[in-house]
Amino acid sequence: MMKHFSTEAIAAMEQRFRAQFINSAPGYKNLCLVGTRSAAGVNNLAVFNSLFHVGANPPLLGLVFRPDSVDRHTLMNIRETGFYTLNLVSEGMEAAAHQTSARYPSDVSEFDAVGLSPVFSGAFHAPAVAESPLRMGMKLEEEIHVALNGTSIVIGSICWLECAEQAIGEDGFVDPAHSKVITVCGLDAYYKTELKGRYAYAKPDKKPALLL
Amino acid sequence: MMKHFSTEAIAAMEQRFRAQFINSAPGYKNLCLVGTRSAAGVNNLAVFNSLFHVGANPPLLGLVFRPDSVDRHTLMNIRETGFYTLNLVSEGMEAAAHQTSARYPSDVSEFDAVGLSPVFSGAFHAPAVAESPLRMGMKLEEEIHVALNGTSIVIGSICWLECAEQAIGEDGFVDPAHSKVITVCGLDAYYKTELKGRYAYAKPDKKPALLL
Repeated sequence: MMKHFSTEAIAAMEQRFRAQFINSAPGYKNLCLVGTRSAAGVNNLAVFNSLFHVGANPPLLGLVFRPDSVDRHTLMNIRETGFYTLNLVSEGMEAAAHQTSARYPSDVSEFDAVGLSPVFSGAFHAPAVAESPLRMGMKLEEEIHVALNGTSIVIGSICWLECAEQAIGEDGFVDPAHSKVITVCGLDAYYKTELKGRYAYAKPDKKPALLL
Repeated sequence: MMKHFSTEAIAAMEQRFRAQFINSAPGYKNLCLVGTRSAAGVNNLAVFNSLFHVGANPPLLGLVFRPDSVDRHTLMNIRETGFYTLNLVSEGMEAAAHQTSARYPSDVSEFDAVGLSPVFSGAFHAPAVAESPLRMGMKLEEEIHVALNGTSIVIGSICWLECAEQAIGEDGFVDPAHSKVITVCGLDAYYKTELKGRYAYAKPDKKPALLL
């Protein structure tokens, strides 16, 4: 039996209930840690669940920053320095990843506070996470202000990418399950996954066919 | 051993290899079916992996449309009519969901072609998916053009939401695992999930603690 919620019913929800409800109802999201370094040299790390694909060539990814969120240090550092890293989270890292969402003072590095290790790729300005199975160096390309609710969408290009060579298939597919990468729903729920299957490129005159 | 890919190495990849690589490397994404109805009355359904959270109050979600993608019928219908639905995908629906990505002619309904059932919520213009465990009626609020690569970001507000009452926790959390909702990586890989745990609201002076 499906329960129906109208706009009015959603608006009438208690604020924290609604935050859980609206953040979780759309299902799983990408989980990543965003690494930045302030102009003063403090390494910052923050968990995000809003990464999305914008394009493959050039390789572009988007990230949403809410106006009232603790991730403002991250956004300030990206604006100031132009660079950040994205780091996937694997099983066993979820407690540390979640803990980066605590409101630490700006002179405290979340790396130290939660027990993850910054690692630098050559002269790239922003720190990556040594424990992450897949990390990317990103360059800020555009910040889009969403007037509807004051959020910012940051679009960046991939400067470099590091992952285990064994995780990359012959066709370029990088299987996150190979490195036990986890996913997230809502603000605080972490999930492990299992591959059900890959499907061949869909055509109108063919039935769906598994690739594997 | 981590393999390092530079901007140049990524740019030099064969086109389809790069599409797989860049689409899959960032890990899991949201998986949903977008339902629309053309001005001519044809019901359209298309699979998306770019849904992201924009805000809880008002409840806003974003969706990316690539310039060269088959989902242009979807975008045309949203522009023309102002309404669409978002429908989560559960285990067993993945073959049908994937098949909606085939390039059917504009007078063919993907609902019929892939064997899913349109369902209408009252007088709401766009069809939802009867088989989906969680569906939302959306109203177009803003379309943002991304000049970097010609993509469009469509931001919509939630008009209504339907899901099983048993999937909603006391705090408002809707557990997608309750309804066997699946997730996606890249263009064609579908994953089932298992809840590892939920964490309490993080504070600087407290250690990470499981909610359950």
